Amino acid sequence: MPSYTAPTKDMQFILHEVLDISAQDIPGYDEMERDFTGAVLDEAGKIASEVLTPLNTVGDTEGCRMENGVVYTPTGFKDAFAQMKEGGWPGLDMPEEYGGQNMPYVLGTAVGEMFSAANQAFTMYQGLTHGAASAILVHGTEEQKNTYLPKMVSCDWTGTMNLTEPHCGTDLGLMRTKAEPQADGSYKITGQKIFISAGEHDMADNIIHLVLGKIVGGPEGIKGVSLFIVPKFLVNEDGSLGARNGVSCGKIEEKMGIHGNSTCVMNYDEATGYLLGEEHKGMRAMFTMMNEARIGVGMQGLAQAEAAFQNALEYAKDRLQGRDVTGPKNPDGPADPLIVHPDIRRSLMAQKSFTEGGRAFLLWGATLIDRAHRGEDASADGLVSLLTPVIKGFLTDQGYDMTVLAQQVYGGHGYIEEWGMSQFTRDARIAMIYEGANGVQALDLVGRKLSQDGGKHVMAFFDLVKDFLKKNEHNAALKADFLDPLKAASKDLQAAGMYFMQEGMKNPNNALSGSYDFMHLFGHVCLGLMWAQMAKAALTALETGTSDPDFYETKLATGRFYMARQLPMTATHLVRIQSGGDTVMALEAANF
Amino acid sequence: MPSYTAPTKDMQFILHEVLDISAQDIPGYDEMERDFTGAVLDEAGKIASEVLTPLNTVGDTEGCRMENGVVYTPTGFKDAFAQMKEGGWPGLDMPEEYGGQNMPYVLGTAVGEMFSAANQAFTMYQGLTHGAASAILVHGTEEQKNTYLPKMVSCDWTGTMNLTEPHCGTDLGLMRTKAEPQADGSYKITGQKIFISAGEHDMADNIIHLVLGKIVGGPEGIKGVSLFIVPKFLVNEDGSLGARNGVSCGKIEEKMGIHGNSTCVMNYDEATGYLLGEEHKGMRAMFTMMNEARIGVGMQGLAQAEAAFQNALEYAKDRLQGRDVTGPKNPDGPADPLIVHPDIRRSLMAQKSFTEGGRAFLLWGATLIDRAHRGEDASADGLVSLLTPVIKGFLTDQGYDMTVLAQQVYGGHGYIEEWGMSQFTRDARIAMIYEGANGVQALDLVGRKLSQDGGKHVMAFFDLVKDFLKKNEHNAALKADFLDPLKAASKDLQAAGMYFMQEGMKNPNNALSGSYDFMHLFGHVCLGLMWAQMAKAALTALETGTSDPDFYETKLATGRFYMARQLPMTATHLVRIQSGGDTVMALEAANF
Repeated sequence: MPSYTAPTKDMQFILHEVLDISAQDIPGYDEMERDFTGAVLDEAGKIASEVLTPLNTVGDTEGCRMENGVVYTPTGFKDAFAQMKEGGWPGLDMPEEYGGQNMPYVLGTAVGEMFSAANQAFTMYQGLTHGAASAILVHGTEEQKNTYLPKMVSCDWTGTMNLTEPHCGTDLGLMRTKAEPQADGSYKITGQKIFISAGEHDMADNIIHLVLGKIVGGPEGIKGVSLFIVPKFLVNEDGSLGARNGVSCGKIEEKMGIHGNSTCVMNYDEATGYLLGEEHKGMRAMFTMMNEARIGVGMQGLAQAEAAFQNALEYAKDRLQGRDVTGPKNPDGPADPLIVHPDIRRSLMAQKSFTEGGRAFLLWGATLIDRAHRGEDASADGLVSLLTPVIKGFLTDQGYDMTVLAQQVYGGHGYIEEWGMSQFTRDARIAMIYEGANGVQALDLVGRKLSQDGGKHVMAFFDLVKDFLKKNEHNAALKADFLDPLKAASKDLQAAGMYFMQEGMKNPNNALSGSYDFMHLFGHVCLGLMWAQMAKAALTALETGTSDPDFYETKLATGRFYMARQLPMTATHLVRIQSGGDTVMALEAANF
Repeated sequence: MPSYTAPTKDMQFILHEVLDISAQDIPGYDEMERDFTGAVLDEAGKIASEVLTPLNTVGDTEGCRMENGVVYTPTGFKDAFAQMKEGGWPGLDMPEEYGGQNMPYVLGTAVGEMFSAANQAFTMYQGLTHGAASAILVHGTEEQKNTYLPKMVSCDWTGTMNLTEPHCGTDLGLMRTKAEPQADGSYKITGQKIFISAGEHDMADNIIHLVLGKIVGGPEGIKGVSLFIVPKFLVNEDGSLGARNGVSCGKIEEKMGIHGNSTCVMNYDEATGYLLGEEHKGMRAMFTMMNEARIGVGMQGLAQAEAAFQNALEYAKDRLQGRDVTGPKNPDGPADPLIVHPDIRRSLMAQKSFTEGGRAFLLWGATLIDRAHRGEDASADGLVSLLTPVIKGFLTDQGYDMTVLAQQVYGGHGYIEEWGMSQFTRDARIAMIYEGANGVQALDLVGRKLSQDGGKHVMAFFDLVKDFLKKNEHNAALKADFLDPLKAASKDLQAAGMYFMQEGMKNPNNALSGSYDFMHLFGHVCLGLMWAQMAKAALTALETGTSDPDFYETKLATGRFYMARQLPMTATHLVRIQSGGDTVMALEAANF
């Protein structure tokens, strides 16, 4: 059975030596000193390894089952959920007034990576509740906040997001779920929603569904969509639970993975709903929390890659097979461990350099969220809004590929379920799809985010890279291995942006045909920037003296691999982008 | 449920207009005229679509089950197997004297792609039988051939290959299965083999296991390995079945995919075995058929990509979501079909250009097998031996990636099992692993095949490319779109080979660290060559007049996409290769 050890040391390095969070002028960050975050991360890591990891295989094997409309989670989930609640983990970064601990989002993200890595299907129950609670926090009335948030912050009640319908996912303007206004100000919600994660289960007293629907008589299409709170059980004025609402689970889906999470068809039959936010402004309300939700999914991609990598690494050290071509490394044994072989190294280094670089990228993004929300900083908000599709699309695509690499290290043992490596790839696969399929992320990036606010956020990103290069140009230890490759990659990104500006004007298909490559190009530049920053931090530590030189030397070596082997991919992405839309769009649909 | 339509038209184009098989001087090819191959392919395509495709989901859902040592295949498999036998398909390319139809391997490969695409798990039962029969054909005594081949060619008896043991897969020198010589010339085989596809099932009267083991007292390691025939039921002198042999299935594995194929732990307990080929030359006997087996696996990668692509294409044409950014294409409907969107196009074109290019590569490789075996041509044998790891590794890696792309077109519907897209990726995943994991293919390519016979086969490949470029240099319609990109990619491949020669001498890790990239670089150049040849054939057809210009124009457009968008990947592979082994090998194992 796979194991998982939380990468606390690496997270601490990123938080304190790369991002230097406790020195950042973000409200609440002054409390984020190394000892404090270390204590929180250690505690979370223990729960991840000891409570959640053992349930990961159980969840995959048993799955959820539905009997008479009741959905049962896998053995042990209920107890573990109670333990999570007891520890106050679901409310870690929620406001104190609703029972949360008011920690920054960046710390919640680090903890979230651990929980997701240990058990993605399980962690989604609280992740979705977090998302729904955030929406109520921003858009809810005082009464709504007081009614729902204390219970949701504690996860006594869980939450869901209901967007997709059988005939529409990305194009939500096509939705048919309708909301009929009632005399008392509530609405009767009728329609069918699909792919509702945690839509029904046995771990909470109540489930608060956030449902997109169209108010009868409102505008056509996406402009007529509103957001509603639809509790499974109506809530009495005193906060106690009342009658069962007209919402039920029609079936749970058989899926490729995340079997421990119930993916439900939800039927709304004149269910009582309460408008959340303004009429016909449902999409805006959803989008408020979209950045966070998408960053959370990017985190899942990274998390599965980390968990899979850890196991592949152990296997590569244990499994004896063949000999080192330069001479035996285990001469007394029947063979050398897999890790001596260059191609196994290539795979392990790809995984390691991705997870460490991706983690820095993710946590940097999380500090931008904190700066935007806690610091009310509009430029941070703009920058993270630009980076969000990259975090989501790049980290989940690459994260998935890394789970495939990890599985491959096991040979045939990676394909049978016994070793658990198949589950990592099957679970990781969903993150490329939900919260906006990655093609939609690429479209969002190139079609909207690049030009947002006159393109000033992408300029801010380039300035960041330029500043870093400039500030360190005389650092000989960084130059050839880190600065030069970063500069080259960043130039590729700029050239791609330039191409879109020039050719996208003539024909938008020239830009959109390259959107996916651009998202990946951008992701590589971000990881290149992270690696350059981490290398700088490592060099600093080595120069100023450290009791753990191996850690920093390893960091540098891992970074050199990324810069030499992975970052050059930007050149091919650029060539593809610059080939334009002609070859992509040439065929008539009928001629495919 | 997914559907499948055999790509007969495309196969005919490749066989007759690109490879011009009936004009090739290979024994038996003169009969391969267009009408003849068309009739065979049409018939096979019907069986694939009508008999095998409907059982694909059944096999995945039901899987195999074992009760009291008996393994039951999924509902319908037995009847379908009987139908395959009745049609004589298992013996299509086997010798007439054993009941086969003596068709060339290239035709068997085309038919095999259809069957695999329709139902990989099912088709493996006869595929493994084919492999085992081939080994007996080459290495068996007359008596062995007469005893086993007629029944195996007809698939009344099926066959298996037993290599892997719990502690050894790639490194077969570690194996423990032992063979004790008996007075009558037979051996008693004792040991455990794992991952034995089709090891036990209910579709054949007898199962002929080919088992690698070590004769007691023989040399240590790989030099002491011999190959044995171990029938499930001993065969009496009159050909009737005798006593049950000491071989049994210990369990069947739970796997990520190919659930319809029984993957067995096989226990040999003093089972009676007969030496196949020479003592201690078991590996050589296995390797004889390795090229064919590996090409067969490459074919599976392509086949799953084709099946997945066909369904993704249909979905992209049907599913209405969003609007074409250049103006509605379905103005009377609520939205445009997915296929209008550039990023969906990018994905579909990647799939289409891979499957068509890969098919040409595969069938070209199959003609080399025919030339080598039927024509006893040593250079063809050398060339296909060089290309085999590329066919296996590149087509299965890329084939898998294509199934992931196809699944992505479906959004959330791709993740639930209902639509069948998950099965394509889960089934395709195994092809990257078995018959030598793709890392081992890369090692074989760079460590052995490149320098085989003084490197003359890779030189022959480069000559082939050069000849094509030279012969067509004045063809203006080919030059910019096809010849120039092919030339550039081929130069990258040569530069990589040069790097290996120079730097691999100094340190073999410099070559082996780039082996995987080299395999993919080589694969792209092969597909580039195929596309250039197909483009030439298409242009010829358009110039000489055709009643179906759309087919050829589509072929050209698809090729242009590959050359412009996919082939440039060779540059990044080269950069990675030239970065050498330093960053790959830098870390001590303990510091990972």
